[in-house]
Amino acid sequence: MVSKENIADSFRALQDAICQAIEQTDQVGLFREDAWEHHSGGGGRTRVLTGGKILEKGGVNFSAVQGKTSPALQKQLNLAEEANYFATGVSIVMHPHSPHVPIIHMNVRYFEMSNGTWWFGGGIDLTPHYIQPAQAQWFHQQLASVCDDFMPGSYATYKEWADRYFYLPHRHETRGVGGIFFDYLSTEKTGKSHEDLHQFVLHVGQTFAPTYTHLMQQNADLPWSEPEKLWQFVRRGRYVEFNLVWDRGTKFGLETNGRTESILMSLPPMAQWHYDFQVQPNSPEEFTQKHLKQGINWLGLEI
Amino acid sequence: MVSKENIADSFRALQDAICQAIEQTDQVGLFREDAWEHHSGGGGRTRVLTGGKILEKGGVNFSAVQGKTSPALQKQLNLAEEANYFATGVSIVMHPHSPHVPIIHMNVRYFEMSNGTWWFGGGIDLTPHYIQPAQAQWFHQQLASVCDDFMPGSYATYKEWADRYFYLPHRHETRGVGGIFFDYLSTEKTGKSHEDLHQFVLHVGQTFAPTYTHLMQQNADLPWSEPEKLWQFVRRGRYVEFNLVWDRGTKFGLETNGRTESILMSLPPMAQWHYDFQVQPNSPEEFTQKHLKQGINWLGLEI
Repeated sequence: MVSKENIADSFRALQDAICQAIEQTDQVGLFREDAWEHHSGGGGRTRVLTGGKILEKGGVNFSAVQGKTSPALQKQLNLAEEANYFATGVSIVMHPHSPHVPIIHMNVRYFEMSNGTWWFGGGIDLTPHYIQPAQAQWFHQQLASVCDDFMPGSYATYKEWADRYFYLPHRHETRGVGGIFFDYLSTEKTGKSHEDLHQFVLHVGQTFAPTYTHLMQQNADLPWSEPEKLWQFVRRGRYVEFNLVWDRGTKFGLETNGRTESILMSLPPMAQWHYDFQVQPNSPEEFTQKHLKQGINWLGLEI
Repeated sequence: MVSKENIADSFRALQDAICQAIEQTDQVGLFREDAWEHHSGGGGRTRVLTGGKILEKGGVNFSAVQGKTSPALQKQLNLAEEANYFATGVSIVMHPHSPHVPIIHMNVRYFEMSNGTWWFGGGIDLTPHYIQPAQAQWFHQQLASVCDDFMPGSYATYKEWADRYFYLPHRHETRGVGGIFFDYLSTEKTGKSHEDLHQFVLHVGQTFAPTYTHLMQQNADLPWSEPEKLWQFVRRGRYVEFNLVWDRGTKFGLETNGRTESILMSLPPMAQWHYDFQVQPNSPEEFTQKHLKQGINWLGLEI
């Protein structure tokens, strides 16, 4: 079994590599780091880039914290009694200036308790303001490749899990074109060793930088109009709604006295809400709205 | 006992009177009405004003709906079995253009079940982007007056209730300067008759228009700067956080398939999130931030 310190080290190195790749692609923005300590042990490095050339706001959080399980956490985990826990992860959200560059989110995490229980979790999902089927397909190909290399057959399962997770019931729409999501991955659940699962989430994390920098480069130079910018603000409003109303991680963090600025770095720099916003018939906005659906087989799409 | 139809009629008339007073004061903006039907009976009239002279976006909702209690509602009400319910209310949020005009919220509501249980609820709270103590005091005087006229001694209780309710634990701050909040008001709880309680919430509702139009007129002509506008967007971001993370009514509506556009008309037209936003020392922004606290005796403040 890989030690929890080694897992935290590998996540710290992942944060470094991702920040470097993003800065290199953006060419202007630099990450500012805030190191912080957790009240019951450990801490984190929150890194935020603002005012880049391509990115308006991007956050890459690393944390490795420990403590005793709170009543809220015990309830969530169905624990009969208090235990010591250790949790480490990397969490990312990127908001570009251009409505033609997608928003992206990535998270990898590891959780271990003094009673011997442990699991890995994570995911990546893409939220284009304008859905481009070929790019959505390419994005899913990258995820399918890393999933099926390490855990044959897992892409289909984790893709469906993402469809269910990144969903806004009150809007009857998905957050974007989905991606993969997985949680509570243990040997019992997957048949894989602790080390194999560590390698799997690490490779998911390592897929992030080449995938997103490719999408940044592919779309950053496209011109955009005021109505496209307005649509971006509307889509960002939905991103806020998902994160504040439905995202379990955000809710849990805010309700259990987490570091608010690190949790909410995922929110867009600016968002709008228009009462009863309607897209024009046969517009790219309507095309996007029609494709914010669960169950689309992006991989198998004939384009 | 006043019939539920009569209570709904009185709320409908309240909506009419408020919309008229707001239009008259704004001088430019007009409410657009969307009438809608509830899936299990009744419906509502959502009225939204956008692009006014003073108001950027304002919503005044009326609804009177009925149906059978859902499992979610039964859980919330600790009901052993399904019952028929009737719910009616008026709900208001106003977002002005100017950072010097406060955001305001008002709600009055009545709930009745086939098992004979009924109660009234409601509240008004003020969220100035820039707290002006004399105006906050005047606002609380209006509320104290209506509370203590109808239910002597109730202002203090409902003012504390508002301090607890309109609070963002993850920011350690109140939403604004508070106001009054009350819920589950019945004869058993208050010693007042059904008719008296109806008159009380109606007078709370009738206090809204003269109070807010006064604050609109008092502040609308003050000039504002770009940094003041930015601060307004930041404060609106907190308004979004409160409504989506903590407001019981919003959460309940979104989780139980309410009319999303009517529920979320409370969100500001535009909001911003800046990582780790800091106010300048000795600035009006710092003054406001320092006064976003529970337990401030606005009524007794020496100004």
